[in-house]
Amino acid sequence: MTTEKLDKSLQTELAALAAEGRAKAPERIITEYIPPANDSGPRYRLAGSSREYIRLNSNSYLSLSTHPALVQAADKATREFGVGPGAVRFIDGTFSYHAALEKRIAEFVGMPCAKIFNSAYTANCGLALSISSPKTHWIGDQLNHNSIIRAMRISNIPSANKGIFKHNDMEDLKRCLDEVPPHIERVVVIFDGIFSMRGDFAPIDAILKVCKPYDDKFKDGVITVVDDSHGIGAYGATGRGTSEHTGVRPDVIVGTFGKAFGVNGGFIAASDTIIEAVRQKADTYIYTNPLSVADCAAALAAIDICDSDQGLDLLDHLGTITTVFRNGLRNMALESIDGPHPVVPLMVRDTARTHDLVNFLYENGVLVVGLTFPVVPKGDETIRFQINACHTHADIDYVLGLIKVFVNKVVPQVPQNVRVTRFSSAGAWA
Amino acid sequence: MTTEKLDKSLQTELAALAAEGRAKAPERIITEYIPPANDSGPRYRLAGSSREYIRLNSNSYLSLSTHPALVQAADKATREFGVGPGAVRFIDGTFSYHAALEKRIAEFVGMPCAKIFNSAYTANCGLALSISSPKTHWIGDQLNHNSIIRAMRISNIPSANKGIFKHNDMEDLKRCLDEVPPHIERVVVIFDGIFSMRGDFAPIDAILKVCKPYDDKFKDGVITVVDDSHGIGAYGATGRGTSEHTGVRPDVIVGTFGKAFGVNGGFIAASDTIIEAVRQKADTYIYTNPLSVADCAAALAAIDICDSDQGLDLLDHLGTITTVFRNGLRNMALESIDGPHPVVPLMVRDTARTHDLVNFLYENGVLVVGLTFPVVPKGDETIRFQINACHTHADIDYVLGLIKVFVNKVVPQVPQNVRVTRFSSAGAWA
Repeated sequence: MTTEKLDKSLQTELAALAAEGRAKAPERIITEYIPPANDSGPRYRLAGSSREYIRLNSNSYLSLSTHPALVQAADKATREFGVGPGAVRFIDGTFSYHAALEKRIAEFVGMPCAKIFNSAYTANCGLALSISSPKTHWIGDQLNHNSIIRAMRISNIPSANKGIFKHNDMEDLKRCLDEVPPHIERVVVIFDGIFSMRGDFAPIDAILKVCKPYDDKFKDGVITVVDDSHGIGAYGATGRGTSEHTGVRPDVIVGTFGKAFGVNGGFIAASDTIIEAVRQKADTYIYTNPLSVADCAAALAAIDICDSDQGLDLLDHLGTITTVFRNGLRNMALESIDGPHPVVPLMVRDTARTHDLVNFLYENGVLVVGLTFPVVPKGDETIRFQINACHTHADIDYVLGLIKVFVNKVVPQVPQNVRVTRFSSAGAWA
Repeated sequence: MTTEKLDKSLQTELAALAAEGRAKAPERIITEYIPPANDSGPRYRLAGSSREYIRLNSNSYLSLSTHPALVQAADKATREFGVGPGAVRFIDGTFSYHAALEKRIAEFVGMPCAKIFNSAYTANCGLALSISSPKTHWIGDQLNHNSIIRAMRISNIPSANKGIFKHNDMEDLKRCLDEVPPHIERVVVIFDGIFSMRGDFAPIDAILKVCKPYDDKFKDGVITVVDDSHGIGAYGATGRGTSEHTGVRPDVIVGTFGKAFGVNGGFIAASDTIIEAVRQKADTYIYTNPLSVADCAAALAAIDICDSDQGLDLLDHLGTITTVFRNGLRNMALESIDGPHPVVPLMVRDTARTHDLVNFLYENGVLVVGLTFPVVPKGDETIRFQINACHTHADIDYVLGLIKVFVNKVVPQVPQNVRVTRFSSAGAWA
């Protein structure tokens, strides 16, 4: 048999995606990392282009991926135990590095206990599989990450057991809590810490205040969960993210080692009992290999750096250049969303103009993400800039200068040898 | 707020799991890898025990995790690009190593194209998300891996669009195909290549024969999918797994780099169009960081070894010692399931005796997995032995000798300082 008939149908589906402007452009391939030199941060080369690029689209907020301490820790652990664990956790795929990382991340985020996953994606799926029951009701922010949406699916939560509140709208959260059916025993309120396309944060203090009066109404109470994947390590006075910034801690913290910490993998931090439930019931933890010891060792090194004077210096620099960039946009009278986080959105509010600026930046060696209709509603078109600690003042000035040129319509000529690839989704496939 | 009320309810749920014999024992922690020496293979140390252990519970069939070529490849790639990708694939998280591994694994399994995932678990989820539609019907073997079951959930397949056939029963597969509702346009038949707890394989040649006459009945045909995570690299004349062993290739191959190849990560290999659909529609691919370049580089090195004379030698040794072990069981008149794969089950068919033998082996430095009621039906109690290429003839003789002692009831005294931890599930938690 062949898949010719299926291929034909899929081609029709994919062409429809492209026609709607929802298809993803071909992936660009990074072929070289060029270390920082003098007053410029690191640069990257892409397949098919001879130019060097600055990344303003990396989640590696503290720029630790290439830190010698992480690189050496990864190699040391690999030489001790090998590259892969060779088994799932409960069948002797647990090495000392896994146990150490779980202890360390729990301590870092100030929770009693933690379990690590291959990603925050599978951590969210695992949490839902572990704490949900037929009498559990889930309430989430409308802009929650895809992994939380899919976590509801993988754990079979019916739509009657779900509520969605308008983004960061506490009145609407209250409405969702009021609408919980009376037979429900357990309510979980789940939200991103930092909303990755906007850089704004969940007001956890306000969320806890809204939830508190409802806690007594349900047998198992109201449980608050933050997925602070973009927040932890990236902001807060000591890098503890949204909990630290808002001054309160929710009941469960989900996070990642793959953004500010510069590695890969996710975690759930919570009470000892919740974590034991995760170990017993989270299929996405139980039935798959854990992270390599290299990833664990590198994550341990990253947390240690984040928790040191060096980490505070990195955070301080990151905060400073983020402010410089935000001020630069403001000085050009450009619209953004205020916030303390290194994700800085530029609200372009026009699809063609968004494409043009993304392409203009690309042609001048700057990688950013553009969000255009229909991925976002018409009028909400945005370019996301992600500031990283490796960026220098000169890098930020360069990017701001390019935006200024574009805004003033003094668009320089594009060199002939540069391949223009759109980041956004319009008409990319087919 | 606290999670006291939730904790109390979860404790009740977990106590019930334990009372049913379904709770998982505490995880043992590997604290040291001891390289092979003279005629003995590698040994491991566990936290809380002074003894050295042989692992007969590792999926690392070719024992490549500690191969210098993999360790060096991982380190080289990390020094080139850093420990983590810092972004998802479509936002410049694609490095040359990701592209190279996709090309290499597709070529290795003889398919036009491939996409890599963080695990075979998320690969199965991603495949279902990519090729399913409201008019798609899924048919699976009753013993399929948990990740296939969860793949149905995460992609919202209703029970009306699913059929399950009795393990490896072609008549029952035919029944499932006959029962597909008439409005269905696309049928997917999905099965493990090697059933990990039994070591037997899916008769892909027979499956394709049963499916063929139905292909014309459905608009998009009948698509066959094997998850050959335990097969690829581990058996078949050149390590191509179940396809090679049965002489036919299904339409889609899912696999892992985390078993025979000794690393971590999964993949889907299929037609160019199916893989493009995966790239556009598989949320578990799109919205999560990819593997580190270290994992990709190590996997590339592992495939190269598998595809060389050195790999053929490893496969040959693995096959030889597997046969020695199988013959050893047979010579003691013990029951197993025949098969060409290094997973060798010992059918104990009694829960207490399974526990006793697992513990006896543990006390004598051998790690294996026991499956007891209610994880398997009463009478199906099994001990799974996994032979790896690092095992020596002396290792196999030692394990067979222990089994012989146990069978003959000449059980030696247990040293006082050995902590006896049960691998199986009975009464372990609480």
